[in-house]
Amino acid sequence: MDSQTPLFQFSQRALQLTSSAIREILKVTTRPEVISFAGGLPSPEGFPVEQLRQAFNYVFTHQGKSALQYGPTEGYQPLRKWVANHLSEPGAEVSVDEVLIVSGSQQALDMLGKLFIDPESRVLVESPTYLGALQSFSQYEPTYVPVETDHLGLIPAELSLPKAKDARFVYVLPNFHNPTGLTLNLERRQELVERCAQANIPIIEDDPYGELRYAGQPQPKLLTLGRQAGAQVVHLGSFSKVLAPGLRLGYIVAPREVIDKLVQIKQATDLHSNTLAQMAVYEAIKDGFIARHLPSVRELYKQQCHYMLDAMDEHFPKEASWTRPEGGMFIWVTLPESVNAEKLLLKAIDEYVAFVPGAPFYATDDAKKNTLRLSFVTVSEERIRKGIGVLGRLIQEQINQSAKLSA
Amino acid sequence: MDSQTPLFQFSQRALQLTSSAIREILKVTTRPEVISFAGGLPSPEGFPVEQLRQAFNYVFTHQGKSALQYGPTEGYQPLRKWVANHLSEPGAEVSVDEVLIVSGSQQALDMLGKLFIDPESRVLVESPTYLGALQSFSQYEPTYVPVETDHLGLIPAELSLPKAKDARFVYVLPNFHNPTGLTLNLERRQELVERCAQANIPIIEDDPYGELRYAGQPQPKLLTLGRQAGAQVVHLGSFSKVLAPGLRLGYIVAPREVIDKLVQIKQATDLHSNTLAQMAVYEAIKDGFIARHLPSVRELYKQQCHYMLDAMDEHFPKEASWTRPEGGMFIWVTLPESVNAEKLLLKAIDEYVAFVPGAPFYATDDAKKNTLRLSFVTVSEERIRKGIGVLGRLIQEQINQSAKLSA
Repeated sequence: MDSQTPLFQFSQRALQLTSSAIREILKVTTRPEVISFAGGLPSPEGFPVEQLRQAFNYVFTHQGKSALQYGPTEGYQPLRKWVANHLSEPGAEVSVDEVLIVSGSQQALDMLGKLFIDPESRVLVESPTYLGALQSFSQYEPTYVPVETDHLGLIPAELSLPKAKDARFVYVLPNFHNPTGLTLNLERRQELVERCAQANIPIIEDDPYGELRYAGQPQPKLLTLGRQAGAQVVHLGSFSKVLAPGLRLGYIVAPREVIDKLVQIKQATDLHSNTLAQMAVYEAIKDGFIARHLPSVRELYKQQCHYMLDAMDEHFPKEASWTRPEGGMFIWVTLPESVNAEKLLLKAIDEYVAFVPGAPFYATDDAKKNTLRLSFVTVSEERIRKGIGVLGRLIQEQINQSAKLSA
Repeated sequence: MDSQTPLFQFSQRALQLTSSAIREILKVTTRPEVISFAGGLPSPEGFPVEQLRQAFNYVFTHQGKSALQYGPTEGYQPLRKWVANHLSEPGAEVSVDEVLIVSGSQQALDMLGKLFIDPESRVLVESPTYLGALQSFSQYEPTYVPVETDHLGLIPAELSLPKAKDARFVYVLPNFHNPTGLTLNLERRQELVERCAQANIPIIEDDPYGELRYAGQPQPKLLTLGRQAGAQVVHLGSFSKVLAPGLRLGYIVAPREVIDKLVQIKQATDLHSNTLAQMAVYEAIKDGFIARHLPSVRELYKQQCHYMLDAMDEHFPKEASWTRPEGGMFIWVTLPESVNAEKLLLKAIDEYVAFVPGAPFYATDDAKKNTLRLSFVTVSEERIRKGIGVLGRLIQEQINQSAKLSA
């Protein structure tokens, strides 16, 4: 920039934003020669291209002008109804007024930050939690309070501790957690909603992967359990993983008082989500397409997950441990404490393999630096086996080195 | 809500949001029996449905999987290039790095509020200005400083007054202003960028209607004049009025340091805009379609504007005055000071005619309550003439009544 031209004065919020070092490093992973387990992208093999092409074509032909016009901020009414029906359970019905269509779950997180967070508001997040949620919430300058997790996920007793008092909400990913891959069992879910009801803590249940279960038994939603236990639950869902993320469509289900405020916020944020995409998605799914389509996506993900777990069993040193997901896209690895995952990443990239180190998934400075996240969905079996082989060797080398140093 | 269930604790920002009384009143205007001049919707007659249908179909057929995948936060590269070329002028080139694709201009306004506004930051807005911009900016709690306008629009000398000092930006709609319909002439544009360069005030140039000129001479963009005069200009454009608003696509053009921050903000806000829509819009417009399509839209709007001005000349009392737009969608009416436009609206709605009173377009308590905005684009000639006839009679009645009262 010319030194003569005047400078912009940014907000405090904007000045705090920094481009993470990890993100810069991971930019190289888009090169085709890199075997990347770093992605959070769903597999394009699962995208129903032809079904969506036909649905868009139908909407253009029969409802073209209304699909291209401004639409209601709340979302396309038939799609809202579909979501309400889809999420209703006996004794825990969802009404259409409790549904807001948004431009993907990330927008839901931003809008919920706007709605609930004042500077220094206490916000409870699992430790670790979804990095994108931290990015959204951080714009509104909360004080994060970490909720501890173990091999079964979030520990509900944490919600009754003094540190949880007066929290604006607790943010939870109950199914195939990003980054840990863990799923809360029924007992923990029940205890969680009961403690939140008692402590008056609203739950934000983020469930983008819920339909991608390929092992174990489906568990009831916190939304459903919450309505039975008198806990307030805001449920987030997405069409990104069951159809395709490029459409940028998701939804928020919440009590009317929350939806009413969110509609005002969405009006000021982007007026409404893409009308055409909402109408075409409704057209594509209204006759049960998702239920017919999902088994093939689940089968694909199950197979990919199997390849990776199988390769890890073969190549990873016995000192490492990892989760065995029942669905979704991620495996979480815990290395011996002596191994730093960021250093490991630099070595791995030298050998054209990438992953995401665990530290950025922690909201506070209690990050476990010996953790990392692997995604298995977009890589071929051959490359999974090759990449995991490289990682296993590099981990073993790191373990050996630190053993030598401490000897 | 059950009185037993715990309550949500909203942010201060969210508590300040209120549903406007006007908006509630205007809800009735969606009924078909109401002749509504209240809308801000473009005419669906101008939507290129078939062109877009073909473009979407093409993208599904040839680029289906990448169109449905997550995409870069900055936007689809060929579309960014198109925007850069479209806005470049000799001596004021725009590079692709200076373009960010957003989900409609409203999202641009929200993101610019996030980027520039701290609580109590001084923000300069025309008096009156676009209501939707006030809604977006207000989320970040600025102190608004009104910039006076006259029959030619914004008065540039205001930018050199002490009240303008240290403003984060001045928000300007130079073409076919919403709500006033006015267009800044060249002299005012030049004076504006020069004073802003001198006073170190960035300009946000919001230009959704710029291509909809149907009378008078095109004027250079503030973006272009700013680059020549050393003023910082952030330019907002939209595909809503030249193609269709339901696609929710617009763009921000700004210096790299602004775009870089906005990319971080957009990442935390909604990751990126609809990939499919971006690719299809690029496909639709890459061979010059907009230039071929716009003349018919301009002709339509010109005709509609003519019907309304003609009816106003016939039916409105001589005590009223109004603007004669060179483009866009709006006419701004100033009534005698004794006539309150909100009271007039209630009478008009009784007779199935609607418009937007002027007061909500003012950022501060200096609102001129004797003003109103009329949109002519979506109403048939017959209904324009009928509705304007009713309004003319009601205005005359209000004038007569207040004359009687003061006699």
